[in-house]
Amino acid sequence: MTQPIDIAVIGATGTVGETLVQILEERDFPVGTLYLLASNESAGSAVSFRGKNLRTREVDEFDFTKVRLAFFAAGPAVTLSFAPRAQAAGCTVIDLSGALPAEQAPAVVPEANPQVLDTLKAPATLHSPSAAAVALAVVLAPLKHLVDLQRVTVTACLAVSAQGREAVSELARQTAELLNARPLEPRFFDRQIAFNLLAQVGPSDEQGHGVLERRLVRELRELLDLPLLKISVTCVQVPVFFGDSYTVSLNASEAVDLAAVNQALDTAPGVELVQDEGDFPTPVGDAVGQDVVYVGRVRGGIDEPQQLDLWLTTDNVRKGAALNAVQLAELLIKDLV
Amino acid sequence: MTQPIDIAVIGATGTVGETLVQILEERDFPVGTLYLLASNESAGSAVSFRGKNLRTREVDEFDFTKVRLAFFAAGPAVTLSFAPRAQAAGCTVIDLSGALPAEQAPAVVPEANPQVLDTLKAPATLHSPSAAAVALAVVLAPLKHLVDLQRVTVTACLAVSAQGREAVSELARQTAELLNARPLEPRFFDRQIAFNLLAQVGPSDEQGHGVLERRLVRELRELLDLPLLKISVTCVQVPVFFGDSYTVSLNASEAVDLAAVNQALDTAPGVELVQDEGDFPTPVGDAVGQDVVYVGRVRGGIDEPQQLDLWLTTDNVRKGAALNAVQLAELLIKDLV
Ligand SMILES: NC(=O)c1ccc[n+]([C@@H]2O[C@H](COP(=O)([O-])OP(=O)(O)OC[C@H]3O[C@@H](n4cnc5c(N)ncnc54)[C@H](OP(=O)(O)O)[C@@H]3O)[C@@H](O)[C@H]2O)c1
Ligand SMILES: NC(=O)c1ccc[n+]([C@@H]2O[C@H](COP(=O)([O-])OP(=O)(O)OC[C@H]3O[C@@H](n4cnc5c(N)ncnc54)[C@H](OP(=O)(O)O)[C@@H]3O)[C@@H](O)[C@H]2O)c1
Repeated sequence: MTQPIDIAVIGATGTVGETLVQILEERDFPVGTLYLLASNESAGSAVSFRGKNLRTREVDEFDFTKVRLAFFAAGPAVTLSFAPRAQAAGCTVIDLSGALPAEQAPAVVPEANPQVLDTLKAPATLHSPSAAAVALAVVLAPLKHLVDLQRVTVTACLAVSAQGREAVSELARQTAELLNARPLEPRFFDRQIAFNLLAQVGPSDEQGHGVLERRLVRELRELLDLPLLKISVTCVQVPVFFGDSYTVSLNASEAVDLAAVNQALDTAPGVELVQDEGDFPTPVGDAVGQDVVYVGRVRGGIDEPQQLDLWLTTDNVRKGAALNAVQLAELLIKDLV
Repeated sequence: MTQPIDIAVIGATGTVGETLVQILEERDFPVGTLYLLASNESAGSAVSFRGKNLRTREVDEFDFTKVRLAFFAAGPAVTLSFAPRAQAAGCTVIDLSGALPAEQAPAVVPEANPQVLDTLKAPATLHSPSAAAVALAVVLAPLKHLVDLQRVTVTACLAVSAQGREAVSELARQTAELLNARPLEPRFFDRQIAFNLLAQVGPSDEQGHGVLERRLVRELRELLDLPLLKISVTCVQVPVFFGDSYTVSLNASEAVDLAAVNQALDTAPGVELVQDEGDFPTPVGDAVGQDVVYVGRVRGGIDEPQQLDLWLTTDNVRKGAALNAVQLAELLIKDLV
């Protein structure tokens, strides 16, 4: 039996952090003492773990020498401030914010590039990438040797939970206001998100690319080890609470063998393929609460055999974030104890 | 002044038909007697036109020799049953259902291929194509000579109104049920559409392509007069009442001149370009109720100068259907009277 490990979860009161604690329990991760950290605003609030209520503490005052593993799920600024402290204390760090450069914290998705773990010295610092990169890597990794990928075109339809707790409350509040014919007052989003689509998620750069879009391109190239892969991506904010969905259009250099693609996806780890004619997976009803990336609508091009189109949907908070981070910890565990 | 023309609107009680009647009034179309036709279920109900209430009649019993122009906005089966009668009576027919083959009823979008009208003999039969084809043709036509298009990849995020009245009521009903924590009973859609995405709209064929997706490919090739254009499209049903949105990814054979693209779109008829940094158009707030296709997020590829990405949003019922049909009638009018 593995020795229990003392662990800190930073951002434990957030969308991802809460789920991460839940997944540690569900998967029977060998947790010793669990320290739940957040900002001073929510310090003292209770989070349940293995039937007990644990109190959250302020990250500012935490002594990282108490733990051997730290999950950072509280945004880039918090990672930049406190990950160096954790590293200096000899902790293994798994960052979910994307704040650290790839040279310091390689992005890893166990289904795509687990080999990267073998190159690391303990205590390691890893990056659990964006939910979009996790979903795409899980699905494209098993196709990489089957299809000579020339380019990937993605429309990422992101749930409001991808932006955290406040975005979830805002969709609920706006929807209720509209159904009750009350005047709409946008707060978290700068305009109506209920019954609407926003063509951009977060800030964009001078060329018009969103920060999230650039991040996905960078992370996916890294995860697939295809540094020159052409990727075009648009992130759209949709009025869905949980579950990201993706249309994925792949161009290959040669005709795609659809039977082989279906077979590869059917047996790929972390993938659930929906093949029944006319059926397709949806975020609500299929993906949410599940630990896999659902794939459906697998089809060739119209008059174009080098073309392959897919639909993906996954629980952005679980598979896209918290679960991937815990899976990484499970792989690292051997060297930790 | 143009002589008034007697007109029939078939499907006058529907989403598109009602808007069509409204647009005939708004644009001061030279309407003589207006006959509003529907099924026997709604025959006798009132629709307002120029301050009067007109009664709808049953299409079965209508004598098409009474009119010179007939708009078919009641679904493919109705067009197939009654368009031949209208044609035999010497009517000009504008079909919005897509039921007639291209050889009998060419698809026309005034901003894209008005030259087709010159090749027709009166009385003509025209096809006002799907809302997706209208939106894409309006935007791609002015780019066609500027960008040597190799392929077009589209994710079409369709509003529920694209499926008619019943779909609109269903989204409202489901949303209210969920907010009131009542059990959900899907009716029009076979599952939850509120706060969810459906990866397919309508039936699909054996290769997995949706009927609407095939239709868009066929219509867009016809409208742009690019019969071999590679087009990949996924139609997604989104929980939005009105306003279709599209992510459009274009591959050209050469580097795209972004300044020239922006200039062409800025001056193109039927297009409203949103260029302010960080801003983008949305269905609710921008497109709905308007007579243009909004374009935003115009940007080149990441590390790929031959790439161009766009976001489009438009009122599917107005610009995508009723308005395009009335615009066609305006162009035909000279030969009619
Ligand atoms: N949501 C997703 O689908 C998803 C997917 C992949 C990655 N991520 C990444 O995961 C991170 C967390 O996202 P989330 O969606 O869970 O956000 P969230 O719901 O807004 O939660 C934010 C968490 O960070 C904590 N926090 C905020 N400021 C802090 C500070 N100054 N010091 C300490 N703790 C602080 C909050 O604690 P308080 O309660 O004290 O405010 C809360 O626990 C982000 O970097 C996000 O990009 C999210
Ligand atoms: N909605 C869009 O965005 C859009 C865009 C482009 C094209 N279109 C096309 O336009 C057509 C109408 O769509 P819609 O959205 O307006 O549908 P809708 O809201 O469901 O309305 C259907 C209309 O057709 C009439 N109708 C149905 N069955 C009939 C029958 N057997 N005989 C006579 N009339 C009949 C209905 O009359 P009752 O009141 O008597 O039932 C109603 O007026 C469809 O072909 C659609 O594909 C729609």
